This record gives sequence, structure tokens and C-alpha cells, in this order.
Amino acid sequence: MKIGNQNYQSIWIDESDPAIIRVIDQQKLPFFFEIKNLRSVEDVFNAIADMTVRGAPLIGAAGAFGIYLATLEINSRTNIREHLSNAARYLISCRPTAVNLSWAVNFVMEKLKNEQRSTSLTKTALDAALEICEMEKENCRQIGRHGLKLIEAISKKKKGSPVNILTHCNAGWLACIDYGTVTAPIYLAHEKKIPVHVWVDETRPRNQGAKLTTYELGQNGIPYTLITDNSGGHLMQQKQIDIVIVGSDRTTRTGDVANKIGTYLKALAAFDNKIPFYCALPSSSIDFNISNGMKDIIIEERDPDEVTNVTGFAEGKIRSVRICPEDTIAANYGFDITPARLITGLITEKGICRATEKDIKEMFSYKFN
Amino acid sequence: MKIGNQNYQSIWIDESDPAIIRVIDQQKLPFFFEIKNLRSVEDVFNAIADMTVRGAPLIGAAGAFGIYLATLEINSRTNIREHLSNAARYLISCRPTAVNLSWAVNFVMEKLKNEQRSTSLTKTALDAALEICEMEKENCRQIGRHGLKLIEAISKKKKGSPVNILTHCNAGWLACIDYGTVTAPIYLAHEKKIPVHVWVDETRPRNQGAKLTTYELGQNGIPYTLITDNSGGHLMQQKQIDIVIVGSDRTTRTGDVANKIGTYLKALAAFDNKIPFYCALPSSSIDFNISNGMKDIIIEERDPDEVTNVTGFAEGKIRSVRICPEDTIAANYGFDITPARLITGLITEKGICRATEKDIKEMFSYKFN
Repeated sequence: MKIGNQNYQSIWIDESDPAIIRVIDQQKLPFFFEIKNLRSVEDVFNAIADMTVRGAPLIGAAGAFGIYLATLEINSRTNIREHLSNAARYLISCRPTAVNLSWAVNFVMEKLKNEQRSTSLTKTALDAALEICEMEKENCRQIGRHGLKLIEAISKKKKGSPVNILTHCNAGWLACIDYGTVTAPIYLAHEKKIPVHVWVDETRPRNQGAKLTTYELGQNGIPYTLITDNSGGHLMQQKQIDIVIVGSDRTTRTGDVANKIGTYLKALAAFDNKIPFYCALPSSSIDFNISNGMKDIIIEERDPDEVTNVTGFAEGKIRSVRICPEDTIAANYGFDITPARLITGLITEKGICRATEKDIKEMFSYKFN
Repeated sequence: MKIGNQNYQSIWIDESDPAIIRVIDQQKLPFFFEIKNLRSVEDVFNAIADMTVRGAPLIGAAGAFGIYLATLEINSRTNIREHLSNAARYLISCRPTAVNLSWAVNFVMEKLKNEQRSTSLTKTALDAALEICEMEKENCRQIGRHGLKLIEAISKKKKGSPVNILTHCNAGWLACIDYGTVTAPIYLAHEKKIPVHVWVDETRPRNQGAKLTTYELGQNGIPYTLITDNSGGHLMQQKQIDIVIVGSDRTTRTGDVANKIGTYLKALAAFDNKIPFYCALPSSSIDFNISNGMKDIIIEERDPDEVTNVTGFAEGKIRSVRICPEDTIAANYGFDITPARLITGLITEKGICRATEKDIKEMFSYKFN
């Protein structure tokens, strides 16, 4: 998608040096547009841990490139199998909630199984990582195609007055490789000249909505309004929201969705106000092995400093301000679980299905055991 | 209540100069403890508008003192009735949602009806403002007494392990004159050595939870944990919250509650998880003339800058950082309506009642027409 007049992906290989993976530094957005080079497994781990890259599909792709970079670290004395499986374990440990990360890392590892020579390992790993990028992009395109129908139907009902969409966090192209999951239908609608307007939750503690969703929507010409995370319920009561679309970091085979903390509250409000609530997700984020979101998904706790401090821009630089007494104890849960009963449907690359085991099974029968 | 080792009210008359009303500057807390002098109606208006003073009962008391200060502005050429009613209108216009403000201002104005001489006007106005302060303090004490029973019952059930209370915004002693509404039962429980722990919502956009509730709980020895506004639903799902207690800026005769934006979302989550949800309020914040919160209560929109910027402390001073792109459009709704059906009960100075017209009428029959 566009930044200024140029098209970008959120991760790519350096054109002149294939040993460098390049990413947009999402910690600096929207204040500075900077590109960061990743040259080692550790660089990838750190970029995921400090959220230079974030968003389930992008984290997966970064992990895949991490294994590729691991193959470049092999020399004549390396125990190849041990080296690679250590790298895989290390990368996967970085973010326990996102299922894409382990999926993508394991996808590359599987392809490497039968390779012995380090040059062919490298080529195979790179091909696999690029394949994941292409898959994710194609997934987003398809999610866009299917989600567009929902927006079109609302637009028709509203006789062309803008379709008001609420989203939480950033499940945009920055979180993916391109297009985004939640944003793909929105970008497609905009392309087709269907008037849309996005209510953007700021998404504390890290403010991915305020920092990233606003930025990418603005750069691509989509009208939006930033609101606090507290506001969505009121807007729904006032019938100022036609549809809620959020992403998913992990979905159970029964349709429970783990997504950014606060998603559950918006799902409750949508349900209470009879507003359709959709999760847009590639099937790579469905964990077909688990069926109870509340029991089976680990909710990671992050640094309390993200709660006690807010990062923003002032006087020419990025600064952090403390918003509470100095000795404040805080807790920082990264995700919550939205039970399937509150979800109108899942927008996947294969189509839209209800958030029930039966419907998910019908659409992804080949993934069920 | 205590700040350091000293007891304070949030508003009082200067001991040496009765023409000065003194307030704790709540814009500077928790970073600096400063006292501000109010010497005119305009000072009071500005203090309410810029949230130097905030919280329904305190705003009411400030408004009452505002009329007292207006009587000090009378000279031989003043048209007294016009001067006072202009002052009253001006003060009331400052915050349209809080019913206490108009109630308190009108309370003082009513007492002044039959006074003609400016000296007796001044004395009567001062007495009336002080009467309001005493009433509000007594209301808080009684709310504490009644609310304490709820905490005691949970503590008994939990066999003495800490009672976990979630609150939103600040309905503490800083918002009132003393004790607070939500915090009164908590302070009383703590005094009685009943172990309590408070989950404090940060309460964007102005972060009254992060800035004020943490501060006053900390200064008075109550254990608390600061969380983002997004977290309460997850904590309720995890059974880490035993009871929710919030304040109210305005309550209808049918039990709908207008309170800080985001309250409705917590009420939905409490309802979904079968956790008791109470609103603590003096009956002065019940508007007995209205019965439909959604239709009859004006939700004020505040400056969008409060959403696009966050104020906190860094490098020795209070600073504001922008958290989004420079050209971001934002919306800032101050309150939302929690429908009575989601509220377990109202904790008032007269006792606890269900949030229904029938029960409110039983408790406050003398206010019903």
C-alpha cells in the first residue's frame, strides 16, 4: 500500500544485499518513517519483541525470514540441525499468543528437513519465507474480496451514505505484508468509490490504532476519526457504527478469537446493540488444535511500563511521559478472548463463515482431524 | 482524606481571607501538589472548565462558592438580581452533563431569594455553600456505610482473601469534598481491616484513574493496580474482579446512569460475567425529572486535543505528547449512558436500591411528582 506516493510492503529483502531483511520501523511511526535492517536471528527476535514489527501475519513472515537468516550463520563447524532448531525455538518463544509465528517458523523448518548443504538450505529457506509472504498477501486480497460484500450490502441499505466501520488496534497492511486483513475490504471499497468512514480505537497501551491505523488510512485516503477505547459503546448506542471489523491473533476451531486487549468489550457492545461484529483473519491464524479460547490460549503479560507511560511526539522527538504516580503498580495484559457467541462471522481467505465449529469445519475440512 | 500526613478537603475557604476559595489543582496531580485560589465567578468557571476541579459533587460545591463570590462583586451600582442570575447561568453552562452543578447553584440562589442587602446576601450564600459541602460529606459518609456492607459480604464469602474492586475514572474524595462516593466504602473497609484491592481503569482521555484514583488510594494506603481501559473485560472473564463500583454524573428516575465514557462497556462485561455492578452516588445527582438516559441526557463533546494528546510527566515537568499523525481528526465524548438493566444497584446516602423507577421512588418518594 501507499506511503506518500510510493508503494511498500511491510517486510522485504534488500535489493542489493540478500543477506538483509528490511522492515518499516513501526515503533517510530507515525512520527518518523524509517526502515530497519535485520541481519541475524537475534535482530529478528528483537524486532518482534520490541514491536518494530507487529501484527500476526507480519510476525509470522519475520519469523520465517529469521530461519532464512539462521541458515546464513552456518559455517563448517555448525551442528546444522541443532543450530536451526535452536533458532526456531528461540524465535517462537518471542510472542506466545500469536499462532502465525510458530506456524510460519515450522513451515520453513519443514521445508528444510531434507536439505543438507548450507547453500541449498539457504535457498530453500528464502523460497519458503517468500512463499509465506505471497500466501499472506493473497490471503489478504481474498479477505478483502469477501469482506467487501459486507460493506457493499450496508452501503446499499444506507443508500450510499458512508458506511461507518469501527476497528480496534491495527490489522492493516502494516500488520500484514500488504493490504491488511481488516483494512483489505475497506481499501477495496474505497477503490470502488463506496463511501466509508472508519472509527479508529486508539488501542492502549501501545496505541497501535492512534499511531498506525490512522497513519495507513490517512496515507491511502480513507476518512477516519480517532476515538478513545472507551468511546465505541456510546457510538454504537447512538447508531454511529454500522459494522465492527477486528483482526485475530489466534482463533480456536470453535470460533473463539484472541485479539488485542479490549476487543471483547467491543464485541459485547456490538452484540448489545445488534451491530454485526466480524473478525478478519487468514486461516493461518486459526489454531485447529484448540477448542476453548478461555482455557487453551495463553494471554501474554507485557511490561507494566507500557501502561504507566505513554509514548508520543513532542518538540521534535519521540518522548515518553509517565501518566501516574511514580510508584504505581500496573498490569499489562496483551490480549483478551472474544467468545464465538458474540461474533457474527469470520472473514477468511476462503470466504465468510459463522464462528462455530460446524461452519469452520465445513470451510476448512482439510485442516480438521 | 490524607495527602502525606495531612488531612484535606478538595475545596475550602481560606482561613485568613474569606474572599478566597481554595482548591487542590487536580490538573497538576499526581505530579505536583498545588493549591489554587479562586477569587471570582470567572475563576470558578475556568477552574471547572479546565478541570482544575472535577467530579460531580465537587463541581457542585465549586458552583455554590461561585455564587458566594458573585455576591462579593456587588457594589452600589449593581443590579443585584440580574448580576446573580447572570452568574448562575454562566456557571451552570460550564458543564452540561453534571446535574449537581445546576442543583447546587440553584440551591444557593433559592436561599438568596429574600435577601436584599449585599452583606446578608454574602453571609447567606456562604452558609448555603458550606451547607452543600457538609451535605456532600455526610452523603459520602452514608454511601460508605451502606457500600461497606457489600464489601463485607464478599470478604466473608472469600474467607478474608482480598476483595477485588474495579473502578473507572475518579469518584474518590478528590471528586467530592471528602471520602468520595465510590471510595467511601473502600476507605471504610480498609479502616476496618478488611483486605481490599482496587483495579483502577486509567480512564482515557484525561486519565483521571491513572492520575487521581491511584494517587488518592496510594496516599491512603489502599493497594491498587493500574490497568488500561481495555483490560476490565479480560479480568472479569478471569474472575479477578468481585465487584464493580463506579460513580454517576447524572442518574435518571428510572436508574439509567450517565458516567465517564467507557462505563457502559464495563457494565456490559460485568453483566456478561455475572459480576455485581454498582453505582455510588449522592441523590443530588439523580435527575428526578427525566426517565430515559439515552434521550434526555446531553453527552458533552470535549476538545479533540484530549484524544490526540496525552499529558504526563517527563524530565521534571508536565508535558503533552501527540500520539497520532499531526493532521488526525478525533472525537471526544465525555460520558456514556449505562442503561438501568445492566446495573445491580445504586449505593446512595439513603441506602442501596435497585436501579428501577419503583425502587428509586420507594427510597426517594419525597422527590417524585
